[in-house]
Amino acid sequence: MIPLVCPAPIATRDTILLGHGSGGKLSAELLRDVFLPAFANPVLAKLEDQASLEIGGARLAFTTDSFVVKPLFFRGGDIGSLAVHGTINDLAVGGAVPEYLSAAFILEEGFAMADLRRIADSMAAAAAKAGVTIVTGDTKVVERGKGDGVYINTAGIGRLREGVRLSASSAQAGDAVILSGSIGDHGIAILSEREGLELETDVASDSAALHTLVDAMFAASPAGALRCMRDPTRGGVASTLNEIAEQSAVGIEIDERTLVIHNAVRGACELLGLDPLYVANEGKLVAVVARESAAAVVEAMRRHPLGGDAAIVGRVTGAHAGMVTMRTAFGTSRIVDMLAGDQLPRIC
Amino acid sequence: MIPLVCPAPIATRDTILLGHGSGGKLSAELLRDVFLPAFANPVLAKLEDQASLEIGGARLAFTTDSFVVKPLFFRGGDIGSLAVHGTINDLAVGGAVPEYLSAAFILEEGFAMADLRRIADSMAAAAAKAGVTIVTGDTKVVERGKGDGVYINTAGIGRLREGVRLSASSAQAGDAVILSGSIGDHGIAILSEREGLELETDVASDSAALHTLVDAMFAASPAGALRCMRDPTRGGVASTLNEIAEQSAVGIEIDERTLVIHNAVRGACELLGLDPLYVANEGKLVAVVARESAAAVVEAMRRHPLGGDAAIVGRVTGAHAGMVTMRTAFGTSRIVDMLAGDQLPRIC
Repeated sequence: MIPLVCPAPIATRDTILLGHGSGGKLSAELLRDVFLPAFANPVLAKLEDQASLEIGGARLAFTTDSFVVKPLFFRGGDIGSLAVHGTINDLAVGGAVPEYLSAAFILEEGFAMADLRRIADSMAAAAAKAGVTIVTGDTKVVERGKGDGVYINTAGIGRLREGVRLSASSAQAGDAVILSGSIGDHGIAILSEREGLELETDVASDSAALHTLVDAMFAASPAGALRCMRDPTRGGVASTLNEIAEQSAVGIEIDERTLVIHNAVRGACELLGLDPLYVANEGKLVAVVARESAAAVVEAMRRHPLGGDAAIVGRVTGAHAGMVTMRTAFGTSRIVDMLAGDQLPRIC
Repeated sequence: MIPLVCPAPIATRDTILLGHGSGGKLSAELLRDVFLPAFANPVLAKLEDQASLEIGGARLAFTTDSFVVKPLFFRGGDIGSLAVHGTINDLAVGGAVPEYLSAAFILEEGFAMADLRRIADSMAAAAAKAGVTIVTGDTKVVERGKGDGVYINTAGIGRLREGVRLSASSAQAGDAVILSGSIGDHGIAILSEREGLELETDVASDSAALHTLVDAMFAASPAGALRCMRDPTRGGVASTLNEIAEQSAVGIEIDERTLVIHNAVRGACELLGLDPLYVANEGKLVAVVARESAAAVVEAMRRHPLGGDAAIVGRVTGAHAGMVTMRTAFGTSRIVDMLAGDQLPRIC
């Protein structure tokens, strides 16, 4: 998550910007310049989306995420289901079987009880469907005007699969890069609700729990063939690929023609000047897989309801370490950098 | 945490009130009427401050807490150290050895980077001192005016001691009630900073990690003698005792003369019309202990730096189940109810 070369040092920033929450370069700066030096320890230094721990003889994954999405309810989900799916996915892409969640609410005085019930019910339904249990929680209330309806934090614990050690630093030259489906749906769904956009066809968030898709990928590949997985949320596929290229010190080349982008998403992005590679997803994963196993993994993913559009979208190279490039539909090649500023705040 | 008899049904409340975050009756209502029905499961239904889980053969405790304290910096601590101590304590009073924490930040656009560094450093120092590791995190940013500087969520995992099963439903008639020290310090420290009160002597928050005090209590008592522990934070000692009385279906009688209340806290409470029994503590614990072990436990606590004022403050009775009473300094007896409204918002 930390670019080795960062254009502007954080020392020049005295205050928090919206972009510090974007999942791009500013987020990486904040991590590198404030949190990592303060909390310095080997687990955190791995920069995964989840911590891998050993406790009482068991190997666990542990992760946390706060959700501040605006609006709270959107086509394809709401802050509650998003909070459940997001934390499940951070466990799943770490190679863990998600088991337990916490749920902590920061409520704004005056928030409608009916909306809170609706959100709690949505969380419960998402957790039940995914087979995880919400076992502990907390509620705080802040004065009117000091919150934004409700913020939710979910932390999660999963059981790490025997012998599995996925890491964003494990990609190797020759590996295949797999994407589980279409990109940009979540971000455009949120943005179109927020801005009242009239799109040709309605875009729904792809918010979903990916752990059974991950199960299918493990079942279809020999031990060690899955190098790493990430869910490309804030910062989009571009930022996720940059994190992997950076941490593994490899190049990644993707092919634009292999990307699935729904027409309405493509249209909205053109209208708004957004690049779908930087738009958030909440039900997709990127996987780096040994070349010889990639076809079998994609085939298994396509048989899963959440992987119908899975495809090999690129490959890992030994050239230009730390850099992501894309072969465009026109046959040219361009650099795909990490999200620089703040494309879409409050997206999750 | 759920009073069997609740004076006003939540159906009459359409919106969230500040008191829903107070740790008193309204918080219990919200839990009973919204969250428990939605998330229904046996672990959550135990209503402990932490979940006891089995995963991969290990017995763990898991807990979460959001911190929205105002002001962020106060005499005796800050939101960062408070967030570390609070979650350590929720694990410790469940009989677990705290090991790992997550840290999730919701930052307001414009928040001073220097303050964030100070808070992160304070969290790191508190974690290092307590021997726990912050292993995973998250940062979100909300627009200016939609937050209040910074909110922090910490979740925690601890290893449950072999054979230990503490529960607020395990208090038995004849047991002793132990309090680890003075009451009301945290709440009055926060309030005096917030309101700019000029107290005779300065009151500092008692915010501290209690897990080594708990270690000493286990070492000083035979298996099963410690029935339950709670840290009396929001809602104060009164609300905590009511929770235990309620869940164990026992009466609890405390003796006012045994309570340690610093003069400045007593003075501030008189000035403000507050009852110190309802004021928050962040470095104290209430324990229910088998009568025959109580003296040894208190003695061990007094040898610990955080238990110098530990004392037996009351006893569990078979009479008036679910009710807490106090024998006053004047020899009369009064009912100590759960916190009804909202005494002090944003206290932790």
